[in-house]
Amino acid sequence: AGSPEVVPTCERYAVRRLPFARLADGDVAFFERLMPGRVLTGEEEVKPFNVDWLKSVRGCSQLVLKPQTTAEVSQVLRYCHERNLAVNPQGGNTGLVGGSVPVFDEIILSTALMNQIISFDKVSGILVCQAGCVLERLNEYLEEQGFIMPLDLGAKGSCHIGGNVATNAGGLRLLRYGSLRGTVLGLEVVLADGSALDCLTSLRKDNTGYDLKQLFIGSEGTLGVITAVSILCPQKPKAVNLAFLGCQSFAKVLETFTTCRAMLGEILSAYEFMDEKCMELVERHLKLSSPVADSPFYVLIETSGSNSAHDEEKLNNFLEQAMASGLVSDGTVATDDKKIKASLLRERITEALTHEGYVYKYDISLPVGKLYDLVTDMRARLGQSAKNVVGYGHLGDGNLHLNITAESYSHSLLDAIEPFVYEWTARCSGSISAEHGLGFKKKHFIQYSKPGEAVALMQQFKAMLDPKGILNPYKTLPSAP
Amino acid sequence: AGSPEVVPTCERYAVRRLPFARLADGDVAFFERLMPGRVLTGEEEVKPFNVDWLKSVRGCSQLVLKPQTTAEVSQVLRYCHERNLAVNPQGGNTGLVGGSVPVFDEIILSTALMNQIISFDKVSGILVCQAGCVLERLNEYLEEQGFIMPLDLGAKGSCHIGGNVATNAGGLRLLRYGSLRGTVLGLEVVLADGSALDCLTSLRKDNTGYDLKQLFIGSEGTLGVITAVSILCPQKPKAVNLAFLGCQSFAKVLETFTTCRAMLGEILSAYEFMDEKCMELVERHLKLSSPVADSPFYVLIETSGSNSAHDEEKLNNFLEQAMASGLVSDGTVATDDKKIKASLLRERITEALTHEGYVYKYDISLPVGKLYDLVTDMRARLGQSAKNVVGYGHLGDGNLHLNITAESYSHSLLDAIEPFVYEWTARCSGSISAEHGLGFKKKHFIQYSKPGEAVALMQQFKAMLDPKGILNPYKTLPSAP
Repeated sequence: AGSPEVVPTCERYAVRRLPFARLADGDVAFFERLMPGRVLTGEEEVKPFNVDWLKSVRGCSQLVLKPQTTAEVSQVLRYCHERNLAVNPQGGNTGLVGGSVPVFDEIILSTALMNQIISFDKVSGILVCQAGCVLERLNEYLEEQGFIMPLDLGAKGSCHIGGNVATNAGGLRLLRYGSLRGTVLGLEVVLADGSALDCLTSLRKDNTGYDLKQLFIGSEGTLGVITAVSILCPQKPKAVNLAFLGCQSFAKVLETFTTCRAMLGEILSAYEFMDEKCMELVERHLKLSSPVADSPFYVLIETSGSNSAHDEEKLNNFLEQAMASGLVSDGTVATDDKKIKASLLRERITEALTHEGYVYKYDISLPVGKLYDLVTDMRARLGQSAKNVVGYGHLGDGNLHLNITAESYSHSLLDAIEPFVYEWTARCSGSISAEHGLGFKKKHFIQYSKPGEAVALMQQFKAMLDPKGILNPYKTLPSAP
Repeated sequence: AGSPEVVPTCERYAVRRLPFARLADGDVAFFERLMPGRVLTGEEEVKPFNVDWLKSVRGCSQLVLKPQTTAEVSQVLRYCHERNLAVNPQGGNTGLVGGSVPVFDEIILSTALMNQIISFDKVSGILVCQAGCVLERLNEYLEEQGFIMPLDLGAKGSCHIGGNVATNAGGLRLLRYGSLRGTVLGLEVVLADGSALDCLTSLRKDNTGYDLKQLFIGSEGTLGVITAVSILCPQKPKAVNLAFLGCQSFAKVLETFTTCRAMLGEILSAYEFMDEKCMELVERHLKLSSPVADSPFYVLIETSGSNSAHDEEKLNNFLEQAMASGLVSDGTVATDDKKIKASLLRERITEALTHEGYVYKYDISLPVGKLYDLVTDMRARLGQSAKNVVGYGHLGDGNLHLNITAESYSHSLLDAIEPFVYEWTARCSGSISAEHGLGFKKKHFIQYSKPGEAVALMQQFKAMLDPKGILNPYKTLPSAP
């Protein structure tokens, strides 16, 4: 609304269109017969599907399809495969690396109407649902039955579970419930040629052959379209407690983590940190306020357990020791009322950053001890050329979100950041994408985290499963030589 | 020792040898130059590597190689690939489906001397080690540093971590720490042509491209030889408690599980059950005795937590309620001294069964509610033709170990069991192999748990990664059409 138009990705990055077929009137007619009323072609209708949430990349697709069933997805892909039409699968379009919107005129295959819960078993905690279910809706549904989703992230109100699985989303609960590679029990996937692969089992353990579903988890829609998910959900904890702490140095943030892990043990469910710059932006743009005194670093601790008296005792013992030993300079245990606000502080940093102009986002895995050095080094390197250089993230998982803002996008600032940030990460054997994936923006940097033989093998998998390369082209992997 | 010779697999099952090259003197000479003193060729020396732990299958390999380094494994495979010699990778040879010994004259590539710990990081709990490390040795090493391995199984004294990963071993701690698909962070693998694939990262999160390592987890040595493993290890719990219970029916075992999960929550680390027949065999053959009064079913519960006072309070509250409500007819919380014995009862059932003659083993995943129906149905079906039909397993994971014993192997008894057991399982959408894998014995039954399209895709992966089929042939997948 009033903001300048996003520059088309193909122009900004000078990408060359691959020789896919171009959409013809006959194609649109075919899709309208297949799913009447669920085919969008008007420029204004299609527009929001062409631009990412960050308004950093923009495609020029002329067609959005909204299938309701796996059979429809199958028919769409079979048709596109025969016609050599490129397809961009899209969930909630909340990705941060340009993976969820087209680069050129790829047909957008939206899972928005595939939002049915198929089954939930209260004994085992196993949920089976269509790919387009919104994460927060699923969590609400489960909470009524005494369970929760094993993942939680800031975009929960919009993101689809299919997109979460396709990008191997991490988020706030990973520390406690593990990654989707463990909690996803089964998938139904439609392959590039339209054939459906039914691996939608609901079993905790199954060692019959290779675990094909793993290949689709985190493949960002480049190997197949996930149409349904079977996922193991933990019981809803009877007691959830939050503590918000201030620390005078990053060394103290680390030491607090070690103490906290030892004293809270199995009830620790999140250990998040943010620097003072993050707090400043959240306060300024979202009118939220810090529950503790100003500090260089803040820590948000969450516990989830089955006995509130036991949990509170553990948390209070920990806090007492952390404050008595000087690890923590100020701290508060959030009461029910304050809980939401304290966790919002952490969840809404991404949003606050967008108010600052263009955001260069980096999502890095590092050995925890070195996590903040990258922020310090980057701040020194960029000096006045960046508006903000901030760091926050999932410390318990060794995951830093490094964000750099400027009034608008500039090639020269990007050149000062990249490849410096990737080289720095590679020197520490880190990952240049901990949880966001590679999408469009990071695919050329994969070699900083993976050896050439691994990338070549990935390209072989891609060629085998999608020989025409129609699924989410220009994403995840550099082109095969 | 004195027991009759195991019938060679190729005779018992009438398998046809694939047209691999046959071992020549020049081959042995090559290997002896490559790894002097670590090449076994004498019949007696090679014999134990040809027969599985159950003494149910037997190959006729004439050569065992014991590399110490990844480079040696690479050279071995490059040579075998060129010469078209088949290779049987072998860890601790504790597998239960005939996957770890040759069918014909495959060269045995043993990881026994690849037993070095490469690194352990006390902050993150990440262990990196060679594939041939024995699970129990690793656990002892970690315990000294305040950590434990995320898996534990009966064969821990012999099995290798590389074999655990190659077979996606489950075991007793899966309920608490999840599967190897979540805890294994990185792998180093040598492919069929001898090229090494280095995905040995030590990061909790890494979303840079497809997760190649997953394909090797559970592939039973058919896609590559795992040479090193990076694995996330949990902190050693400060308090471990065991409870041993007697229940009057399987329905009560199930209801006890639901109660237990609600009351013990995050400290529950194992929920195992066994029937009275198992107890009888363990008592008879291993001179162990039950700590509770005779019952149709027994349950072993383990808790692991960070605060012994809290854990004991939770466990006692649970026991009180379970006994007061009549779910449990007799129960005891094992003191330190009794702990080992109580857990041995469960761990040594496999061993006790081998004293009964030939054992037909089935490792089935089912919806928990139906878990014991299969045992009852099988017992009724077989009547007097079987000596014992017993059931035990990881109830918390929906995993039943169904074991049938007879004085010796017989085709007719096998025909009475199979495919009945697989058809029964398929009707309940279960898995015909929860954690043991398919190996040699179960590969023809994969279609009971996987659709044809999935098996075809697995065969494509096999053909792509091992075009000559030299890695662990005759195993895991039926031959491609």
